[in-house]
Amino acid sequence: MNYTEEHKKLFERAIREARQTSSFDVPVGCAILKDGVIIGAAHNQKEELNDVTGHAEIIALRDVQKKFGTWRLNGCEMYVTLEPCPMCAWAIVSSGIDKLYFGSYNTQCGAFGSVMDLRNTANSKLEVYGGIEEEKCDKILNKFFDTLRGSSN
Amino acid sequence: MNYTEEHKKLFERAIREARQTSSFDVPVGCAILKDGVIIGAAHNQKEELNDVTGHAEIIALRDVQKKFGTWRLNGCEMYVTLEPCPMCAWAIVSSGIDKLYFGSYNTQCGAFGSVMDLRNTANSKLEVYGGIEEEKCDKILNKFFDTLRGSSN
Repeated sequence: MNYTEEHKKLFERAIREARQTSSFDVPVGCAILKDGVIIGAAHNQKEELNDVTGHAEIIALRDVQKKFGTWRLNGCEMYVTLEPCPMCAWAIVSSGIDKLYFGSYNTQCGAFGSVMDLRNTANSKLEVYGGIEEEKCDKILNKFFDTLRGSSN
Repeated sequence: MNYTEEHKKLFERAIREARQTSSFDVPVGCAILKDGVIIGAAHNQKEELNDVTGHAEIIALRDVQKKFGTWRLNGCEMYVTLEPCPMCAWAIVSSGIDKLYFGSYNTQCGAFGSVMDLRNTANSKLEVYGGIEEEKCDKILNKFFDTLRGSSN
């Protein structure tokens, strides 16, 4: 993987998005890039919007699709702070995005290696790089889950 | 499975939806029920809406969620003419829908038995019944793909 300083700077946008997540939602942020420019970004809003499909990746995908008037996102890259679930993974693969960089590994339902790899089912050429800025991304998630556990005690 | 005349009548709504699909989209229809009443229905609009998430199931789920102000659809059933893909399957499982009845088996990417079973990953209690009105559902799909093949010759 060729992860440059430029990538690092751009990945920060996904991290900033994660930090903007409401306190009800699992903090996950996502950014979509084309030619090195961020063309869309979102955070998880499942609880906030009462939408089971309201994950960061789906919201960002739909936003970019609307802007560009097409669901075909070839030539784009996605940065996301958590390994996508099967719902998001299939949407990403179907959109034709070229490269995916994710932060934390999702041992519950990660669909790009941790629990399954949906690229095999889709016969997809999507390049996937996991563990990007992993410590930062883990920290954001751990803080959320620690608070959750604390409040349920 | 206890598939009654009442179920058959209700499944017709999913079939009618499939028939309403635009000629650009794979014809798939879906209906969501609560207490035997249809509370939402949709057809595939991926190409029509230029939305990679615009499958019948996702559109119907989002519609019902909006109507009821919650993503929790426990106590609901879904009828769909084609076995869901991984994206839709994960959304269905996450929504807490109780029962799913699908028509045609999806040998490409069916995520409730044909290629994988995402209920295992989710540790879900969703009841799934496949092959409902299969002949009718297959016919609608075959007609679409025959036309597609014909026009590309």
